[in-house]
Amino acid sequence: MSPNELPAIGTICSHSALQIFHGARTEGLSTVGICAPERVELYESFSKARPDELLIVDDYTDILSEEFQSELKEKNVVIIPHGSFVEYVGADRLLADFDVPVFGNKYTLQWESDREREREWLDLAGIRVPKNYNSPADIDGTAIVKFSGAKGGEGFFLVDSEEDFHDKIAGTGDDYTIQEWIEGTRYYPHYYYSPVDEKLEILGIDRRDESNVDEYYRAGKGEKSFVVVGNKPLVARESLLPQLYEMGKSLVDASKELFEPGVFGPFCLETICTDQLEFVTFEVSGRIVAGTNLYPEGSPYSPYYYDEPMSTGRRIAREVRGAAESGDLSRITT
Amino acid sequence: MSPNELPAIGTICSHSALQIFHGARTEGLSTVGICAPERVELYESFSKARPDELLIVDDYTDILSEEFQSELKEKNVVIIPHGSFVEYVGADRLLADFDVPVFGNKYTLQWESDREREREWLDLAGIRVPKNYNSPADIDGTAIVKFSGAKGGEGFFLVDSEEDFHDKIAGTGDDYTIQEWIEGTRYYPHYYYSPVDEKLEILGIDRRDESNVDEYYRAGKGEKSFVVVGNKPLVARESLLPQLYEMGKSLVDASKELFEPGVFGPFCLETICTDQLEFVTFEVSGRIVAGTNLYPEGSPYSPYYYDEPMSTGRRIAREVRGAAESGDLSRITT
Amino acid sequence: MSPNELPAIGTICSHSALQIFHGARTEGLSTVGICAPERVELYESFSKARPDELLIVDDYTDILSEEFQSELKEKNVVIIPHGSFVEYVGADRLLADFDVPVFGNKYTLQWESDREREREWLDLAGIRVPKNYNSPADIDGTAIVKFSGAKGGEGFFLVDSEEDFHDKIAGTGDDYTIQEWIEGTRYYPHYYYSPVDEKLEILGIDRRDESNVDEYYRAGKGEKSFVVVGNKPLVARESLLPQLYEMGKSLVDASKELFEPGVFGPFCLETICTDQLEFVTFEVSGRIVAGTNLYPEGSPYSPYYYDEPMSTGRRIAREVRGAAESGDLSRITT
Repeated sequence: MSPNELPAIGTICSHSALQIFHGARTEGLSTVGICAPERVELYESFSKARPDELLIVDDYTDILSEEFQSELKEKNVVIIPHGSFVEYVGADRLLADFDVPVFGNKYTLQWESDREREREWLDLAGIRVPKNYNSPADIDGTAIVKFSGAKGGEGFFLVDSEEDFHDKIAGTGDDYTIQEWIEGTRYYPHYYYSPVDEKLEILGIDRRDESNVDEYYRAGKGEKSFVVVGNKPLVARESLLPQLYEMGKSLVDASKELFEPGVFGPFCLETICTDQLEFVTFEVSGRIVAGTNLYPEGSPYSPYYYDEPMSTGRRIAREVRGAAESGDLSRITT
Repeated sequence: MSPNELPAIGTICSHSALQIFHGARTEGLSTVGICAPERVELYESFSKARPDELLIVDDYTDILSEEFQSELKEKNVVIIPHGSFVEYVGADRLLADFDVPVFGNKYTLQWESDREREREWLDLAGIRVPKNYNSPADIDGTAIVKFSGAKGGEGFFLVDSEEDFHDKIAGTGDDYTIQEWIEGTRYYPHYYYSPVDEKLEILGIDRRDESNVDEYYRAGKGEKSFVVVGNKPLVARESLLPQLYEMGKSLVDASKELFEPGVFGPFCLETICTDQLEFVTFEVSGRIVAGTNLYPEGSPYSPYYYDEPMSTGRRIAREVRGAAESGDLSRITT
Repeated sequence: MSPNELPAIGTICSHSALQIFHGARTEGLSTVGICAPERVELYESFSKARPDELLIVDDYTDILSEEFQSELKEKNVVIIPHGSFVEYVGADRLLADFDVPVFGNKYTLQWESDREREREWLDLAGIRVPKNYNSPADIDGTAIVKFSGAKGGEGFFLVDSEEDFHDKIAGTGDDYTIQEWIEGTRYYPHYYYSPVDEKLEILGIDRRDESNVDEYYRAGKGEKSFVVVGNKPLVARESLLPQLYEMGKSLVDASKELFEPGVFGPFCLETICTDQLEFVTFEVSGRIVAGTNLYPEGSPYSPYYYDEPMSTGRRIAREVRGAAESGDLSRITT
């Protein structure tokens, strides 16, 4: 199959796009970047990760227009839906109004981005989650208040009591969840599940860096905030890998029951490891997470699966290429 | 020498086994994993690190049985004793009841796992250690209470005074050490000392991630705990390397006096770097540490010694292979 | 051009010398280390980073002597001025009394090491900086007191009020700055600007590790200190890269107005990312920073520019080699 006949990899220039483009390039696929005008110079400056072609959009929802979709289809693009892509376009509109092949199961995006469905999925998988307080009156310890629309932890805050909650909620939104605070340290394992060989890989682990809370200890005064600004690398005790592996498998199995054919490609469990060595999961991401950006040439785990430097972006491109070569692209796109 | 005549690398499937197997494979040695039944699927899933052969054991002390040892000897296995191996089998039993070649000096394991010997070793090496309080009445500042049998920091707690100590010790064990708390940040340098060329390398540095203490600042209430759940990468100021190098050399020199032929292969000093730029060592590990798992393809230091991606696991395999090829395996095993 | 005709790369054996030597070696340049006697054994132990030649000096200011400079010139050395080099020799003396080719614009070193000029540079670039309190009486929140001569954060302390300031300043120096404390998490992007193709690269990001403040949360009592003892890796949210890129470009542009031909080669902005996703810059380093030591084989960003493992040290060597080969060394040295 000549490169021209292979699909191109496309995504919005944000989130994990550099890794995705770099991985595609390494696997010999061409790339299409959907880019805001003010980001063109930056993305073009990365000589080994810049997309072969840039489609400039003023508003990311332009992606949903008929003309834009036609252009993507003409260019034989497979879209990789990263976190910002889902945020900008919306999981529901991706399902209802977007007809270009999207890598993975689009229903996953709907299940991960709705807090109630997310919890149903985790529960079915038998994965431990923090308690949700149905009413502020139930708060009986430290809790974190999270907003549904909030991206990257914006506006999250801690509360210790019902009074504290009412003081702090004033003037903010009302689409919140009050979640039990779990003591421990955070681990965000990057899974990859291939629908072709039905194998689950743990391609890396990261921890988010949140401003201001993650350096609040230095001189903090006033309120703590939880805005995601980056990611830090780490590894888990090897004796914890069996637990992480089982959690990933259970999540895949449960997803097959909930939304056929279930989750595949990259996904992540946002967890806290307690001092009882138990992982408590407070979120699922059903697509590539930004923490994988730490590992464009492979992580401390990827060499155990691949002899080449394997990022999650490259892993995706390899799956796409393999499916295209065996004439089976429809198996890995929706 | 054909691969069949070379020894195989064996260890228990835990701790740093993936790195050890991966390193052996890279050096062209075959591998034998000693594995609990519930971990078989996981270890087999790592296509580039799974052992060539898995020996299933229900109880790790089965390793000490005559039949099991015969099997290992028949397979020409050199055992790499990582932290979990020593924990599960015991340094004393490895010395008394285990006749399979073990990489390194088995006496090291006895000296590192006994707090009094460990201190004697550090003192002879002239390495600064925290003060131990002989009696709770002597506590005159922050101190940490550590238990002898405790693995991975389990049960450790902080105290500020004698009263505080008596409150918190109630109901726990009595085989504890009360250790002065040193202010600073932690550095765990990974040394490798080759007995063949008598050279000392600093192959990497890590910091442990402990639950809940290492994210306690986010919203912590109640007691801090110190359970090791993972590791984080870092580098030291280059001007601190002379001090780290001297500490490693002194430790090797002292060990030669205490337990012939002394420590060799990988070892680690668990240290705190104070704001006076002095390292205070609170523990020695006389074998590969889990922090090396951060660097299966090399660390920020290993490229200064090797042109290939060099993990500690691979470094060990290279030593074993070299010794086998020169007919000198007995020099690096006990 | 034969290796003999190419310049050698030279620097003081400290700070980021191993990376610089390793990078030069990878680019096929020979290396000269200026070394204190007590560090010779250490630097010779790095088989792939040790300098081809070591020049032993008892006092680093010996470098300024006529004989020493003649020797460097005879050996056709290009000096790479890292942080310790500038600290030991002094930016002013490098300008006034040092005649050996120095990579980069020596005026940059003067502008980065003088707090007033540094601020003028940042202001002209339109980069947000923390407020400076002209008088202790103006302190109206948390502030950090920094000393001008202080290297690596030595002696820095936090204050909350004028009284607090007067209590803590007693007995210390008087060449201090009182700087507004910015809440957020720290990001230190490693820029590289090539004067040949006028391209700006972001080769990596780190965060400093400071003793005792960065582990103070574990059991801290008494005063916090801010002494730099190492560096930790991290990545920024990809949506923050446009802001970092613009800041780097503005700094380069402003420098061209202030000190012809402006900053080139490696430089770094020491920033805090607030929970409003804005970077506030508290310092500029106009030369290679020690945080690049995390990435001797490339960072999470360098693969987006280079197919080979590219450290900042290697990037410098490549620039030097390229300039030498095109007979244009004077363009990249002063």
